[in-house]
Amino acid sequence: MSSTVIRNGTVVTADHSWKADVLIENGLITAIGEGLTGDEELDATGCYVMPGGIDPHTHLEMPFMGTYSSDDFDSGTRAALSGGTTMVVDFALPSPGQGLLDAIRMWDNKSTRAACDYSFHMAVTWWGEQVFDEMKEVVDRGITTFKHFMAYKGALMVQDDEMFASFQRVGELGGIAMVHAENGDVVADLQQRLLAEGNTGPEAHAYSRPPAVEGEAANRAIMIADMAGVPLYIVHVSCEEAHEAIRRARQQGKRVWGEPLIQHLTLDDSEYMSKDWDHAARRVMSPPFRDQKHQESLWHGLMSGSLSVVATDHCAFTTEQKRHGVGDFTKIPNGTGGLEDRMPMLWTHGVGTGRLTPEEFVAVTSTNIAKVLNCYPKKGAIRVGSDADIVVWDPEKTKTITAASQVSAIDYNVFEGKKVKGLPRFTLTRGMVAVHDGEMRTEEGHGKFVPRPPLTSVNRALSTWKELTAPRPVQRSGIPASGV
Amino acid sequence: MSSTVIRNGTVVTADHSWKADVLIENGLITAIGEGLTGDEELDATGCYVMPGGIDPHTHLEMPFMGTYSSDDFDSGTRAALSGGTTMVVDFALPSPGQGLLDAIRMWDNKSTRAACDYSFHMAVTWWGEQVFDEMKEVVDRGITTFKHFMAYKGALMVQDDEMFASFQRVGELGGIAMVHAENGDVVADLQQRLLAEGNTGPEAHAYSRPPAVEGEAANRAIMIADMAGVPLYIVHVSCEEAHEAIRRARQQGKRVWGEPLIQHLTLDDSEYMSKDWDHAARRVMSPPFRDQKHQESLWHGLMSGSLSVVATDHCAFTTEQKRHGVGDFTKIPNGTGGLEDRMPMLWTHGVGTGRLTPEEFVAVTSTNIAKVLNCYPKKGAIRVGSDADIVVWDPEKTKTITAASQVSAIDYNVFEGKKVKGLPRFTLTRGMVAVHDGEMRTEEGHGKFVPRPPLTSVNRALSTWKELTAPRPVQRSGIPASGV
Amino acid sequence: MSSTVIRNGTVVTADHSWKADVLIENGLITAIGEGLTGDEELDATGCYVMPGGIDPHTHLEMPFMGTYSSDDFDSGTRAALSGGTTMVVDFALPSPGQGLLDAIRMWDNKSTRAACDYSFHMAVTWWGEQVFDEMKEVVDRGITTFKHFMAYKGALMVQDDEMFASFQRVGELGGIAMVHAENGDVVADLQQRLLAEGNTGPEAHAYSRPPAVEGEAANRAIMIADMAGVPLYIVHVSCEEAHEAIRRARQQGKRVWGEPLIQHLTLDDSEYMSKDWDHAARRVMSPPFRDQKHQESLWHGLMSGSLSVVATDHCAFTTEQKRHGVGDFTKIPNGTGGLEDRMPMLWTHGVGTGRLTPEEFVAVTSTNIAKVLNCYPKKGAIRVGSDADIVVWDPEKTKTITAASQVSAIDYNVFEGKKVKGLPRFTLTRGMVAVHDGEMRTEEGHGKFVPRPPLTSVNRALSTWKELTAPRPVQRSGIPASGV
Amino acid sequence: MSSTVIRNGTVVTADHSWKADVLIENGLITAIGEGLTGDEELDATGCYVMPGGIDPHTHLEMPFMGTYSSDDFDSGTRAALSGGTTMVVDFALPSPGQGLLDAIRMWDNKSTRAACDYSFHMAVTWWGEQVFDEMKEVVDRGITTFKHFMAYKGALMVQDDEMFASFQRVGELGGIAMVHAENGDVVADLQQRLLAEGNTGPEAHAYSRPPAVEGEAANRAIMIADMAGVPLYIVHVSCEEAHEAIRRARQQGKRVWGEPLIQHLTLDDSEYMSKDWDHAARRVMSPPFRDQKHQESLWHGLMSGSLSVVATDHCAFTTEQKRHGVGDFTKIPNGTGGLEDRMPMLWTHGVGTGRLTPEEFVAVTSTNIAKVLNCYPKKGAIRVGSDADIVVWDPEKTKTITAASQVSAIDYNVFEGKKVKGLPRFTLTRGMVAVHDGEMRTEEGHGKFVPRPPLTSVNRALSTWKELTAPRPVQRSGIPASGV
Ligand SMILES: [Zn+2]
Ligand SMILES: [Zn+2]
Ligand SMILES: [Zn+2]
Ligand SMILES: [Zn+2]
Ligand SMILES: [Zn+2]
Ligand SMILES: [Zn+2]
Ligand SMILES: [Zn+2]
Ligand SMILES: [Zn+2]
Repeated sequence: MSSTVIRNGTVVTADHSWKADVLIENGLITAIGEGLTGDEELDATGCYVMPGGIDPHTHLEMPFMGTYSSDDFDSGTRAALSGGTTMVVDFALPSPGQGLLDAIRMWDNKSTRAACDYSFHMAVTWWGEQVFDEMKEVVDRGITTFKHFMAYKGALMVQDDEMFASFQRVGELGGIAMVHAENGDVVADLQQRLLAEGNTGPEAHAYSRPPAVEGEAANRAIMIADMAGVPLYIVHVSCEEAHEAIRRARQQGKRVWGEPLIQHLTLDDSEYMSKDWDHAARRVMSPPFRDQKHQESLWHGLMSGSLSVVATDHCAFTTEQKRHGVGDFTKIPNGTGGLEDRMPMLWTHGVGTGRLTPEEFVAVTSTNIAKVLNCYPKKGAIRVGSDADIVVWDPEKTKTITAASQVSAIDYNVFEGKKVKGLPRFTLTRGMVAVHDGEMRTEEGHGKFVPRPPLTSVNRALSTWKELTAPRPVQRSGIPASGV
Repeated sequence: MSSTVIRNGTVVTADHSWKADVLIENGLITAIGEGLTGDEELDATGCYVMPGGIDPHTHLEMPFMGTYSSDDFDSGTRAALSGGTTMVVDFALPSPGQGLLDAIRMWDNKSTRAACDYSFHMAVTWWGEQVFDEMKEVVDRGITTFKHFMAYKGALMVQDDEMFASFQRVGELGGIAMVHAENGDVVADLQQRLLAEGNTGPEAHAYSRPPAVEGEAANRAIMIADMAGVPLYIVHVSCEEAHEAIRRARQQGKRVWGEPLIQHLTLDDSEYMSKDWDHAARRVMSPPFRDQKHQESLWHGLMSGSLSVVATDHCAFTTEQKRHGVGDFTKIPNGTGGLEDRMPMLWTHGVGTGRLTPEEFVAVTSTNIAKVLNCYPKKGAIRVGSDADIVVWDPEKTKTITAASQVSAIDYNVFEGKKVKGLPRFTLTRGMVAVHDGEMRTEEGHGKFVPRPPLTSVNRALSTWKELTAPRPVQRSGIPASGV
Repeated sequence: MSSTVIRNGTVVTADHSWKADVLIENGLITAIGEGLTGDEELDATGCYVMPGGIDPHTHLEMPFMGTYSSDDFDSGTRAALSGGTTMVVDFALPSPGQGLLDAIRMWDNKSTRAACDYSFHMAVTWWGEQVFDEMKEVVDRGITTFKHFMAYKGALMVQDDEMFASFQRVGELGGIAMVHAENGDVVADLQQRLLAEGNTGPEAHAYSRPPAVEGEAANRAIMIADMAGVPLYIVHVSCEEAHEAIRRARQQGKRVWGEPLIQHLTLDDSEYMSKDWDHAARRVMSPPFRDQKHQESLWHGLMSGSLSVVATDHCAFTTEQKRHGVGDFTKIPNGTGGLEDRMPMLWTHGVGTGRLTPEEFVAVTSTNIAKVLNCYPKKGAIRVGSDADIVVWDPEKTKTITAASQVSAIDYNVFEGKKVKGLPRFTLTRGMVAVHDGEMRTEEGHGKFVPRPPLTSVNRALSTWKELTAPRPVQRSGIPASGV
Repeated sequence: MSSTVIRNGTVVTADHSWKADVLIENGLITAIGEGLTGDEELDATGCYVMPGGIDPHTHLEMPFMGTYSSDDFDSGTRAALSGGTTMVVDFALPSPGQGLLDAIRMWDNKSTRAACDYSFHMAVTWWGEQVFDEMKEVVDRGITTFKHFMAYKGALMVQDDEMFASFQRVGELGGIAMVHAENGDVVADLQQRLLAEGNTGPEAHAYSRPPAVEGEAANRAIMIADMAGVPLYIVHVSCEEAHEAIRRARQQGKRVWGEPLIQHLTLDDSEYMSKDWDHAARRVMSPPFRDQKHQESLWHGLMSGSLSVVATDHCAFTTEQKRHGVGDFTKIPNGTGGLEDRMPMLWTHGVGTGRLTPEEFVAVTSTNIAKVLNCYPKKGAIRVGSDADIVVWDPEKTKTITAASQVSAIDYNVFEGKKVKGLPRFTLTRGMVAVHDGEMRTEEGHGKFVPRPPLTSVNRALSTWKELTAPRPVQRSGIPASGV
């Protein structure tokens, strides 16, 4: 098989940066150094050679009210690659009562079309013996992360006792618990109250899910994970309240990670005030966009390490689909796009402003999550032996984001009109050049499932600590004993 | 009717202190000044003349597993008076399905024997139309504070959606929401886990209710109260975690009060490690005693104002009753004494050490809660027109606490052996001298119910703010509108 | 002497509110109750009868560069009365090397014209044996609060070791330490840097004194006060950073109070961006106005009790005087007005919005500071025996603030154009009706000095605690001893 | 030259762990993989192959009162190697008035004897044009980190204005500011107060430097660094107060790192209460050991990433030298040992308990500081091309620490009697096996100076941000302009 060399770039990893060429053979990185040669040469002059992005939070072809989110594993992964992302992690979502293995089968089917590598998280949407039992095999198949919805009452939501039981099971199996953190009881009630008061528009979606409701749920999940002795990953941290709960937990030595989305880092809730219903409805996602002060909190979290990963929650519903909710905001499907724009938007607003170093950019877009998910350094690294999932990043390249020119299948873009500076020159997926200087050369079905083993180093450390500090009975002779 | 004058003392209120005599006629304070005379004279030389204590958290003659807590309104209020407390607020506890008015009737019956004045909180132990409806009349009867249990799963515990509904109702009625804050789902599961692991002793009671579990529930209740727009009072705040949640809420302008107990301020969880099963079991209450670092947090809360009131949760189960839980800690009835010792213990460890000023002592034992409960200045004040509920406090008087010499009906005392400095010389309940220099002169049935009106100043301010900041719909013409 | 009665109003104190008439004789309140009569009757129908405001932070006729701030004790106290404030506390400012008693003499002279009562704080602007010695007599004269400037390098600023020495002295004397908290070294350097970079306009005043610089100094003063064992009062707390330091200190049981200004509560730093140099320069004060997010922090401080008092730092330099700083912002005299508008602005934005209850309004404008300064209940109270410093507040009365119609001697008003709702109908100073339904009836020289005794309850409690926890030597026999 | 291979071990880096052999040639790592062979083979079966430790805080042969700390670059670096540390960073300390380059010369001379590699920080102990000028050449020589003492009044201490000037200079040069954070004014005064009160023993050393005094200085340094736009590294963070300041700063996006010492992580201030004067005096260092609650804070800092590096502040004064302070604790030389024990103590109490993962252990003992100091991946990495500074760590090896068997030249050990589990089997310094299964094979003078370039990625990002947010003048035409 032919070799490829990326020449004259600066390799940037989460650790550090240095001038080097990168040689790729058989989909793997086989050499890093100066003066390398190969069959195909990619000119990285002036560019950063970075691990391809990993988006750990997507919903491709997600079933919803008899239809599906519009980006499937084909268009979705192509959108990803076009923006420098080379791996996505999607959520296998069993219907209530459906077995976990059955859900995996469905997701296996959908993902055959993927143009880049992918993995799955498993959602625990109900609780019972079957779920408990099948979790073991799910882990054996390399899916070690279990998502729980604290919102979506009457649908995906689980109760505290179910969540506690599930978290304990995840802990036993050496996995990681995940939560969508919003208090579903309160959201459901607020929705009814708002509708009753005549708040029916998309802005009421934001009203019905205030930051306090997210912060509370994050705080609760953290406590339950601590009691269960399991590491916790909180998806789509959108506000200071949830971030504060995470910081506080970490500061108590708890093993908790937080994931802000690129949308929450760069957009705010004034979008919902648009006089254009479509404009507002297209931005309906949960949690909703927040007041600007929350953005600062999220950025600071990335800078200080209290937040770990930038994702998208890409779940692309079209304008057509959004309009199901005309007259009743609770019927607007939740979800927006972002897969394609996460890396350029974060670079522009992060590295371009000096908030993040290039190394930190790599950490939060790729390396950190590869470590959390236990697929590092196969993924998330520029390193001999690693998969050649690489983005050659041109920091001078600019564009204005428009739906008109995007790869994603949806008919709008929440970042419409935003100028970005910093874009892929090349994107490689396991050595295959999928993006070549603006030209898409992706291949349907090229992507493979990435299994991930349980029992990470963090799992083991946490178990050691929990065992060391476990409750022990007082030894008493003669019970009850004597007096006052 | 004859008059009584308290002479030569220093009046101490929550505001300030000054030398003055206090004249009492018809159960009321009718003059405060120098050189007053009256039919009966009480010599307060060297003493502080303070508003009698108010204990807002007692469970007298509380039904439990077919029996009752051992202090009833007779012995309980006599114990209160002996320690300088002149009013208690007890919890009317409807059984599941029982109406609120019916519960009031039961509590009315029990309280006929009270030797000092009293009021009630109403517990919301289940949810339904009847409860919703009767809450109005409960408020009309002067009971404006509604307690919710977030723990005791399968018994008193309410779910988040019920609590949210109830909080909204309390808010509408101008009342105040109260919570016992512990995550009942997690406690129930931890109890089972501990029993299964052989942790059956009273120390496992503490293991099953760690601070994090209390902190979580406090945090949750605060969010729900905020969403409901109702002031919140959190009973028995025992740990930094719950205190932190309260501080954080107050710092965001939320109307939340926290109530530490004298037990948590002065005792710690090493008590549960006693080799004497009885010793440990007698201290079983919820929340349990905590590690010493939490004490410092609670004291600081009182000093800084982030915590407002010191109570007892007096619920006196005898050793006999406690022994129901031999072999299974979950069967040990929850509750201890304290009514009699709250004031001397707090004075000794608070004022005696310089943590609290005498004025702050009055605030946290009497005046603050009188304001919160809206019975100030009838209660909690030394003021012309106020009820003559007065304690004449001798700061030099000492004793060693022992069950042998106590007024309370239980057969032990959790403060056994503690030395206190600072004790009542006289205690007056509506002008009647109930404690006279060590001699008890209480009168069964002297106590009266204190009705409390709703719609406090805090309720009104909060409503104003909530209305000002309520969600408002965006006005749109033509929905949906235009494009990208 | 004739009596006055305020009829048909609602008395509002820091404690609670009730319908009552108030009788005044000889400058004192002599009765509070229903159906009172007097020689003169003031109709308070629909009004709140509250303790007159106390502004604990003014600089009347303050010497500056050979001239004086334009409001003196005459116009300044008239402005105060017109807005419902009945007592001011001014700062006696010794020049470097000048004795403290000498400074008092100067301030005694100026204050003879005062139309309302007043007291003084003493500034410690240099350190030496004379200062140390005279502090005793200053306290004996009833001035117990000592201000220290951590900024104004080369002028008023004191070093840490001087401040520590002074704080210890204040502690010994039973007084209270006060600070203007900004790091003067950093401010001085930033000023030079800004001028060098061409930042010469009034907006650079704000650039040169960022919140972090204030927060640092507040934090430092708190530590030094703690080490010295003295209560601390921090003037003009303008930002979250300083507020956070105060909160943190209070939460550790430290005795610290913070004073936000009405300006910082209601105005922000966008004022400095005005294209009108005069507009910006007139708002130059230290600390400068802040970004809006700080306002929320200050309001929450008042609501939660972490901040205690609202003041003005009234120091009225005219436009003429401000123009000394054209071309060099460091030469713009620091100071603005506010005495006249503090109460209506705070009522409008505090009580009018539901942030504060009327009782809290009284607490932060009057009662709290009277307690801190130890002149309660002579001042700050509606109470038999208290000075009849009273404002009869009409919550329905409105006006638009304009310099054109103000009492103050300055030629502009930083609140120009602001609408207020809630204004005095009557203001009484020791029984004399100084404001009568819009008509000024003040009397020059009516005001008297209010001496304040040392050794408050807080001082005594703090000393007890410090003694209890003082370092004690380890007893060793034979030093050095053996060992590994 | 011959090659060495480390066989059958598990390579552990800050990133992750994997089974691999490591090949070493010419002092560098030349291959990592399975089945490697070399001339010399080191059996790492059952062991972790980790980057050698870096101790960024030592004072070898430090001048003090006419004598020197007892461990010089010979014994000190041998002690380091014996415990798995392969690089030390020492502080070049100019005397007041001495030039920086002159100080470097002195440190160059001392360090010729080093058995492992080393680098220097430069102390800024006074301020003037010469210092300003020479800083440039210091950076050119590869010393980019400048230490400032906020304590040691009258000796090393610098004032705020000097520190601000120096920090700005460091920022310009692309370096990193460092501080010893304690308020020197307050410490000096407390020392005098304590001596005057008869507190002369070593325990008074701790009394004179309470946590609040350290926290204050840390907070101040952070503000000054922020104003200067320079990254800040705070040495020997010993308490929650300083840690809190660091956390708060990081949470605001500031570039600050904190360095706890192994002593503060594992020992507490009860040591100073020893009846044995020598025992207490040997533990005198600044900051002193702290109350146990601070330990928990420091551990949590390492776990959450708010603290970055574990060091020793190794400055070994003998018992003889300590006794200079008999009768006056201020004369006890400040400093203890630790170089030899840092790695085993941290492993035992960190990894052994589950607080830290093995990867985190590598991060905080080696990799993090290599990145901060900009000598990564030459140091701090197991990586092809990196220096072969390696420790082969046997997690099952145990010993009891005793002075009797230590390599360090001092006559005692503050960890005397502590059992450790986890010790080096081999330590390699640039490929040379310096420790071979308990046998020392170090070579005097083998160590080389490690120059470090300025302008790290963090420096560049911070500069970008500061420029983006720099103050900008308002453009005004006609100054002053119009009216009110
Ligand atoms: Zn979600
Ligand atoms: Zn999602
Ligand atoms: Zn309870
Ligand atoms: Zn209770
Ligand atoms: Zn000032
Ligand atoms: Zn001032
Ligand atoms: Zn040091
Ligand atoms: Zn040092």
